[in-house]
Amino acid sequence: MLCLGIDPGIGRVGFGFVEERGSKLSSVNYGCIDTDSHLMVQDRLSLIYEELKNRVKTIRPDVLAMERLFFGQNLTTAENVWQARGVILLVAAQEELPVVELTPSEVKMAVCGYGKASKSQVQEMVRCILSLESVPKPDDTADALAVAIAGISIFKVQRLAEGKC
Amino acid sequence: MLCLGIDPGIGRVGFGFVEERGSKLSSVNYGCIDTDSHLMVQDRLSLIYEELKNRVKTIRPDVLAMERLFFGQNLTTAENVWQARGVILLVAAQEELPVVELTPSEVKMAVCGYGKASKSQVQEMVRCILSLESVPKPDDTADALAVAIAGISIFKVQRLAEGKC
Repeated sequence: MLCLGIDPGIGRVGFGFVEERGSKLSSVNYGCIDTDSHLMVQDRLSLIYEELKNRVKTIRPDVLAMERLFFGQNLTTAENVWQARGVILLVAAQEELPVVELTPSEVKMAVCGYGKASKSQVQEMVRCILSLESVPKPDDTADALAVAIAGISIFKVQRLAEGKC
Repeated sequence: MLCLGIDPGIGRVGFGFVEERGSKLSSVNYGCIDTDSHLMVQDRLSLIYEELKNRVKTIRPDVLAMERLFFGQNLTTAENVWQARGVILLVAAQEELPVVELTPSEVKMAVCGYGKASKSQVQEMVRCILSLESVPKPDDTADALAVAIAGISIFKVQRLAEGKC
């Protein structure tokens, strides 16, 4: 199974493709889509859409996993992140990818076995699980890989519950 | 000038194309994109994208006007409206439409000359300005036409300020 994990944003969208073969997980492709803050929001959304759609068409994951957002203090940022999320979900629909949405504690549970793990603990576990030499940078990329790892577990459980495997 | 006004939502997206010829405004096309609440969010977003993109490609407006949102009590609804908004802005970017964002009071000022006009006052003014026999239904459609009328005024002012006309 190949899962695309996404850490959504308007300035940076972290992405990580993680493949499960037998009991081993490995990263197929990961990185970050950066958009220039001087661009208009609609052009930043268009860049995210094009870049993500190209990667999905090339790498062909089986499922897209994305963290659920919780409103913080900065509503202007939250608005734009939700708008970016809309565009990412559109790519999923157009490429017929099932979507798994996870809470931050579900990601921490799946990666570290502990729902209140720190950011650095999650990142170090991502590095170990995927046998990477160092923690991928920026944080958005490492976070996306954590979401992909968690997405694989949760998607398998969902399919089991639906009697699909 | 031809302006597409949008009242964004996830269950219903109101749209109205309003054309200005000389001093006369008329509606070219208007209606509402409905999405079934039983569908997954990504599929509802995909329906909104396809339907809106088709209309924009056919009718070719000069500008897209959309109301800015303000957070109410129902954050779950707000999240989905923002996600829909992201997809609508993507259509604008892909079709190279400039975007005008308006506050509710800007819409009321432009349509009624009074920033605190009631919903029914705005709807009645939309009917008069566009010489329609009755107020278009549902409200989302009438609201989108109001946004289009206001969008024309504000886009002209913006272009004047930029020395473009």
